[in-house]
Amino acid sequence: MAANGQKTWVFSDGDLPPAGDREPFGHEALMVVNLNKKPASLSLEILFEDREPVRDIRATVAAERVRCFRLDKPIGDQNFRIPFGQYALVVRSDVPVVAVFGRLDVRQNNLAYYSVAGYSFS
Amino acid sequence: MAANGQKTWVFSDGDLPPAGDREPFGHEALMVVNLNKKPASLSLEILFEDREPVRDIRATVAAERVRCFRLDKPIGDQNFRIPFGQYALVVRSDVPVVAVFGRLDVRQNNLAYYSVAGYSFS
Amino acid sequence: MAANGQKTWVFSDGDLPPAGDREPFGHEALMVVNLNKKPASLSLEILFEDREPVRDIRATVAAERVRCFRLDKPIGDQNFRIPFGQYALVVRSDVPVVAVFGRLDVRQNNLAYYSVAGYSFS
Amino acid sequence: MAANGQKTWVFSDGDLPPAGDREPFGHEALMVVNLNKKPASLSLEILFEDREPVRDIRATVAAERVRCFRLDKPIGDQNFRIPFGQYALVVRSDVPVVAVFGRLDVRQNNLAYYSVAGYSFS
Repeated sequence: MAANGQKTWVFSDGDLPPAGDREPFGHEALMVVNLNKKPASLSLEILFEDREPVRDIRATVAAERVRCFRLDKPIGDQNFRIPFGQYALVVRSDVPVVAVFGRLDVRQNNLAYYSVAGYSFS
Repeated sequence: MAANGQKTWVFSDGDLPPAGDREPFGHEALMVVNLNKKPASLSLEILFEDREPVRDIRATVAAERVRCFRLDKPIGDQNFRIPFGQYALVVRSDVPVVAVFGRLDVRQNNLAYYSVAGYSFS
Repeated sequence: MAANGQKTWVFSDGDLPPAGDREPFGHEALMVVNLNKKPASLSLEILFEDREPVRDIRATVAAERVRCFRLDKPIGDQNFRIPFGQYALVVRSDVPVVAVFGRLDVRQNNLAYYSVAGYSFS
Repeated sequence: MAANGQKTWVFSDGDLPPAGDREPFGHEALMVVNLNKKPASLSLEILFEDREPVRDIRATVAAERVRCFRLDKPIGDQNFRIPFGQYALVVRSDVPVVAVFGRLDVRQNNLAYYSVAGYSFS
């Protein structure tokens, strides 16, 4: 594996859960770690089952910081809102980063976590 | 790691949970992302503990799409039904893809997620 | 990644949960897939926090089969019983295999799954 | 992958859950396996969303042992306490090791596990 991470991360199973009516709210999130001494410029792409991808949603992660992107909120410079239903998320960065994707589901009285494996390449 | 994914994915712990009697139903699912500009032709293989594998279940994923295969439903062109009990799933594709496997268990009042790590090679 | 899997798998977070008093019982399990046309001979090693490892617990997986090893039961030809408390599991095989490790926890009324990431090399 | 593990592990989604008031207490933990015949010297680094990283928290793992670091307790020779909120954890070792990261959440009556994928390089 390359030092400090990879430039592309693919998360194949996005599906926003209902938010519920109290904390902790159901959601999905993308966490990105930038171990470099310069900012990371991200370009996010969302793929769907039955229509064209949404491309080039722009965001940044400061040098030597972790950033949590709530995927149930408007994301990136375009304030894009991911619709309910199956999707996949591709993260492209100009410098190597490390990313993980998680879901918090509160459809029942007790929360459940789901972690989606990332596939990465440079 | 190779660009856009891998041609073979192995998921070693399949075991369909009871469906339960209301949404969300217990199930397992395979999500496949095709980042290529051409369709992906898949050949699925199911391995068991005590009998010969079922081979070459055929399915496709359109270009630049994600597809969710419910594994508790008939799958592929053959409408194969996976029996209850331990199994493993091998996904072979003619182009690189990214795949993940998940289980949703509702045997109790509250759901639980289980994500099975994929091993991939080209 | 090498075809058909890897010869060594390391699972770093074993810790047998209480079994509870009804199905599904709390447990940990190791699933091993052998995609080869010959049997896989396994040698398992258990590491602990404060004493010497237990080495060379022997088991096999038939050709083109998946096998589930319940880790709360006697394992291998030696019928070794893993004690409660933190441990790590190393799987060595004479042919490449794919392995995953999972925990099912039933300490509360509802089950929870925990999947331990495997690290593999040949 | 390199034999016996990797020298650097990155876990991108740390966020200590509330402890709750009874066993099992909510927490996060880092498990490190040292398969080598010499001790592993670790240097841990914690990254945050909005301030400088905390660097070079020192700890060791004995030869041929697994060690569980409770991340809700003071860690390393400095007895550093990780604050609540988003963080990322980097583990650097002088010899190859295998590490995993897990969260146990007890905010509701039933526990939930979350496993954070590790990214590793040498």
